[in-house]
Amino acid sequence: MASLSEVAPLLAATGRALHARGWALGTSGNFSAVVRREPLALAISRSGVDKGDLSERDFLEVDGDGVALEPGGRPSDETVVHLTVVRERGAGSVLHTHSVWGTLLSEAARDAGELVLQGYEMLKGLSGVRTHEHSEKLPVLENTQDYDRMSRDVRSALAEHPRAHGLLLRGHGLYTWGHDVPEARRHVEILEFLFEVEGRLYAATGRLKARPVGAFAGGEHGGG
Amino acid sequence: MASLSEVAPLLAATGRALHARGWALGTSGNFSAVVRREPLALAISRSGVDKGDLSERDFLEVDGDGVALEPGGRPSDETVVHLTVVRERGAGSVLHTHSVWGTLLSEAARDAGELVLQGYEMLKGLSGVRTHEHSEKLPVLENTQDYDRMSRDVRSALAEHPRAHGLLLRGHGLYTWGHDVPEARRHVEILEFLFEVEGRLYAATGRLKARPVGAFAGGEHGGG
Amino acid sequence: MASLSEVAPLLAATGRALHARGWALGTSGNFSAVVRREPLALAISRSGVDKGDLSERDFLEVDGDGVALEPGGRPSDETVVHLTVVRERGAGSVLHTHSVWGTLLSEAARDAGELVLQGYEMLKGLSGVRTHEHSEKLPVLENTQDYDRMSRDVRSALAEHPRAHGLLLRGHGLYTWGHDVPEARRHVEILEFLFEVEGRLYAATGRLKARPVGAFAGGEHGGG
Amino acid sequence: MASLSEVAPLLAATGRALHARGWALGTSGNFSAVVRREPLALAISRSGVDKGDLSERDFLEVDGDGVALEPGGRPSDETVVHLTVVRERGAGSVLHTHSVWGTLLSEAARDAGELVLQGYEMLKGLSGVRTHEHSEKLPVLENTQDYDRMSRDVRSALAEHPRAHGLLLRGHGLYTWGHDVPEARRHVEILEFLFEVEGRLYAATGRLKARPVGAFAGGEHGGG
Repeated sequence: MASLSEVAPLLAATGRALHARGWALGTSGNFSAVVRREPLALAISRSGVDKGDLSERDFLEVDGDGVALEPGGRPSDETVVHLTVVRERGAGSVLHTHSVWGTLLSEAARDAGELVLQGYEMLKGLSGVRTHEHSEKLPVLENTQDYDRMSRDVRSALAEHPRAHGLLLRGHGLYTWGHDVPEARRHVEILEFLFEVEGRLYAATGRLKARPVGAFAGGEHGGG
Repeated sequence: MASLSEVAPLLAATGRALHARGWALGTSGNFSAVVRREPLALAISRSGVDKGDLSERDFLEVDGDGVALEPGGRPSDETVVHLTVVRERGAGSVLHTHSVWGTLLSEAARDAGELVLQGYEMLKGLSGVRTHEHSEKLPVLENTQDYDRMSRDVRSALAEHPRAHGLLLRGHGLYTWGHDVPEARRHVEILEFLFEVEGRLYAATGRLKARPVGAFAGGEHGGG
Repeated sequence: MASLSEVAPLLAATGRALHARGWALGTSGNFSAVVRREPLALAISRSGVDKGDLSERDFLEVDGDGVALEPGGRPSDETVVHLTVVRERGAGSVLHTHSVWGTLLSEAARDAGELVLQGYEMLKGLSGVRTHEHSEKLPVLENTQDYDRMSRDVRSALAEHPRAHGLLLRGHGLYTWGHDVPEARRHVEILEFLFEVEGRLYAATGRLKARPVGAFAGGEHGGG
Repeated sequence: MASLSEVAPLLAATGRALHARGWALGTSGNFSAVVRREPLALAISRSGVDKGDLSERDFLEVDGDGVALEPGGRPSDETVVHLTVVRERGAGSVLHTHSVWGTLLSEAARDAGELVLQGYEMLKGLSGVRTHEHSEKLPVLENTQDYDRMSRDVRSALAEHPRAHGLLLRGHGLYTWGHDVPEARRHVEILEFLFEVEGRLYAATGRLKARPVGAFAGGEHGGG
């Protein structure tokens, strides 16, 4: 059991670092950590805060229905998605970012319905992954402004991808999580690094690497 | 009603931040804020100032004809364009940047005459936009050194694109605005982020996304 | 002869600088320097340390079999590879990084089995290279989680490429080295710079520059 | 007339700033300023200095033959090229950088023998340029380790391109200059910005923009 005053400084520092890398520009992105399991309580960023100026006062506590525990506070609109991830995965922290490469790949992988990352040593930075031969399959969901629908879509996608460490919303961004804030942040760094590699390979070759890694060699490349 | 001494420090800090992100290198870019509506007075950056060193002394006040209110000061050559945007949109601040991706897209979208940004969650950072389904159509104008002509072209383009939050000058850069300096700056960040996404998709696929988002999936991409 | 307390601060500063450039994100990368030749002793980063927070306490001393000389310390899993490079090349320092461009090129050059860098002035920053006409051939090895096998593969590759200043593990990253830490770091900077140039040329043209430089001119580029 | 102790701090600060932007990594790049015209004396960076650590002590004074005026100092190998530019253009400062985009374009434009930059507002940051319609033609020379030959090649290229503000050495980098250090630095920033725009357009479209700007629109792009 933690408290809002304990987790808020850590979440604020994490958010500022993600903003500095360009993964949460303007007011985009939102960040949370579980404060209590029974009954569930979550510390989450307030709605509409500029992430470059994020301070510990920009977080508030919500209950399991996403209702603020203090009067007048307005949590992020996507609080219900954070709560869904916490319940479905037992996560202790959920981080949501908007990056250039994540947005680009969410478009490129839209028809496939999932983005596959495999054959990279960096995958071993994901919790429980022991080999680069791991195939990380991130579901890609349609974006919506109906957060209850988004929450249901997320629950289904997590059920269908029981081993996934994150998910992409199309034209929107990444959700990832961990058992605590540092693990969730490490998952952001790993996945965003791999998004950049995949995105640049996509730009170079005109296709996603949804096939065995070996299929990528130069000989197969079309017009070039 | 504000005063030059109140808005200049905010404009200077904004300009330095835009320079640090590489959106106003060298002496490029210029920045303004309305000081008074009746009669119109504008604080605007002086001509030829290096934007990395911008201080509050690098701004001066001009009247509604773009004439400096103090002897000897020389405002930016593009002052007349700022005044046009202020009048046509009722803006409280106008920011003009020169970025790599904005320049690239102004070339790529030239024949279309407008750059369309749609299907991105980030669009919700633009004033009055409530859904990623919004279609932001930015006019693309030919560049010119005749600032009166540029001002007339801008007035026409704004009339034809009444909902646009910005416009591109070909081979030159972005004009955007807001009801105050922070909103105008948020619009720069949102639009420049989306320029990078669009520009990288253009590099990857060889075409602009001026069609419904769904048309982008991998299957349509040529050789890939 | 040096000591752990002498080389650890230098290795820590080097590692933090490499992290800041995005070449050792999260816990990726590992760094070492020879402390003693007879019998061999190596200072090397501990396993699982975040490279952005690297301090001199994150290094420990191992013997020629990779066994920690102090109780309870756990060196990097790849210690055996560092020891192999030290023995085969007589290196005084070995640096291992994970960059976006190195990862991308390790995929693109996989079938060729080596990445060739030639015709660049920057090559003169590699030890012993006096002209841009130098052809630097970096072996590209399959990645594995069997570190003894990796060590044997590295030994063979170094024997086959006696003049190489580094090697790539596919989907993983770069190993390079030098007679001391500053030289090894310079080699990282030179090779990573050239990876970015090569990687962007690959993205632009769809092929690697494994032919004479002259073959690259625009006329040969397909559809564009 | 200046003195070494006056120009060295300015050159050192300029060099560190260029290194920070990634345009003079490792020991690459060299920087000079005229100290006296009659007889000619030049302050120039010493050979082999890491540009990230550049201090005013890393500069020395040479005469018109490139000979150091103090015993024991070793000027940059490319001093003779700086002297040639100073004489041919009457420049007061010469800056030489190695960037990723400059290197890439020097390969892409090799057959054409010159890189043409036109239609960009940023061109107005070059000394004497008053309109974006300016066509900046930078000669592209073959690289060589024979600095006397390089000097002769530079002299010929400058004679053939009397209005050029810089030149590219293939696989090597940019030389640019100005009447003083700040102007030369502004020319670096302008040209490197435009290299990035041109380089990204080249990557997106597969060709250089050596034709009228209008020829670039999407319809002409091949397979994409």
